[in-house]
Amino acid sequence: MNAIELIGSPVCVGLDPVAEKLPSALASKPMATALEAFGVGVIKAIAGIVPCVKIQSACYERYGSDGMRALAATLAAARECNLVTILDGKRGDIGISAEHYAAAMFNEYGADWATVNGYLGMDGVTPFLARGGAFALVRTSNPGSDALQALRTAAGSTIAETVADLVAATGHAHLGKCGFSALGAVVGATKSNEAASLRARMPEQIFLVPGFGAQGGTVADILPCFHEDGRGALITASRSVIFAPASDPTQWTSAIARAAESFAREVREGVQTMQSTTTTAKSSRPAQRS
Amino acid sequence: MNAIELIGSPVCVGLDPVAEKLPSALASKPMATALEAFGVGVIKAIAGIVPCVKIQSACYERYGSDGMRALAATLAAARECNLVTILDGKRGDIGISAEHYAAAMFNEYGADWATVNGYLGMDGVTPFLARGGAFALVRTSNPGSDALQALRTAAGSTIAETVADLVAATGHAHLGKCGFSALGAVVGATKSNEAASLRARMPEQIFLVPGFGAQGGTVADILPCFHEDGRGALITASRSVIFAPASDPTQWTSAIARAAESFAREVREGVQTMQSTTTTAKSSRPAQRS
Repeated sequence: MNAIELIGSPVCVGLDPVAEKLPSALASKPMATALEAFGVGVIKAIAGIVPCVKIQSACYERYGSDGMRALAATLAAARECNLVTILDGKRGDIGISAEHYAAAMFNEYGADWATVNGYLGMDGVTPFLARGGAFALVRTSNPGSDALQALRTAAGSTIAETVADLVAATGHAHLGKCGFSALGAVVGATKSNEAASLRARMPEQIFLVPGFGAQGGTVADILPCFHEDGRGALITASRSVIFAPASDPTQWTSAIARAAESFAREVREGVQTMQSTTTTAKSSRPAQRS
Repeated sequence: MNAIELIGSPVCVGLDPVAEKLPSALASKPMATALEAFGVGVIKAIAGIVPCVKIQSACYERYGSDGMRALAATLAAARECNLVTILDGKRGDIGISAEHYAAAMFNEYGADWATVNGYLGMDGVTPFLARGGAFALVRTSNPGSDALQALRTAAGSTIAETVADLVAATGHAHLGKCGFSALGAVVGATKSNEAASLRARMPEQIFLVPGFGAQGGTVADILPCFHEDGRGALITASRSVIFAPASDPTQWTSAIARAAESFAREVREGVQTMQSTTTTAKSSRPAQRS
């Protein structure tokens, strides 16, 4: 993701629009029209500040084919603004159906990356990698995730770690020039105590890290998701940016831009502090990605 | 599912249309038009023969908003023909996003049931149960599934069995008058050696059993998915029915109807044979569902 290095902040804004939180100026429009206007407004506000937008497919799907047209228009606007796009649909199915989903997300909607669910196995994930990049769910931050993802297998690792090993092995055949794989991993920001273990198991995966801000993740939580050189993770904030309060409701895009700037700065400075600490501690050898 | 008892065969036809296999009579139409015409043709052909149709969402999603209109029209046709509808989208996300998906599948598209993926935990599944019925992926039949689903936890059960226990516990709060839960389970037909264990762990779940026919599942494979009284499972065949060869290509719906009849009879007779064997073996006490 060269865009991350161009912008300088490894962050992503999550676009999860819901009817009851849209700016009042859009409230009178038909929902699909409002979704598109809101999405385009968010994208124009954050372009140049963050390198990447993650769009929650569910928010559009619930409005049927009109919603899907709004999704397509939003993705097109993001491409025009040179944002890297992640379509967050968490799809997972076997062979031919996974190919259909990949065709939908990458070809029909034109996303750069998609989120996928690997419970069915890696043969449900690899069809995505023939058409684009995919972030596989490894460890999520919702309360119910522990009952499965944190369980230990007979071999001693957690189920999330087991999935991490599958993702690392599958992704190794899909390395890009940057040294990272086209198969990344979703690792929730509130699971920082597990992030170091997952980072070690998946050195070639970019971590997509949702849960920053409104969902409770802090800078300290997300640092273990990075390599020592400050690369390898993309931190996502959604509600704290796209629903940033505006004192003048007509100026909602300005409020979003300010929240995006603040979010990008907070993460960038956190990563820079981590790097300088690491460099001081190891002054005689530069930090290297494993 | 009263429809199953009305029709008398616990079967479901899977509608997974792909461009290259559509009847030649539809080949010249725009893809979304062809999808709708094919789906409506299949539904009219199987109505009255099978109680249920499972529609693969991915096949429609790859054609964007036009594809979603074809999906909506196909679901509407199935309702008109009194078929129970399962929208096979295998969605799974956290709280609010799961609610969006449930609103899409049950309210926007009008499906009766949806397939869901519980890797994120049961808090990603329960939002579906507020609006309709859901089949959670427990054990799938694809080759790559073993690497995760067949692994043993430290407690000694497989991951699939662990998910089965979560599904059983979550589903118990959603029992219908029939004694079955609104939360069912997907159990692949080619995993019959594991079906008995899963049946015992999930007595209140209806099993949705894909993989019969073209994917290799036989009558012997699917019988352990049923209770002794012949209830509790819904066997699905897709390609072997919807792409049944027609000697006269214009008569493709007749070929589908014949294939559906043959499939429904094969499963019905298999279940009846199992029941009569069970009844003979236990003549003094009638088979009861646990």
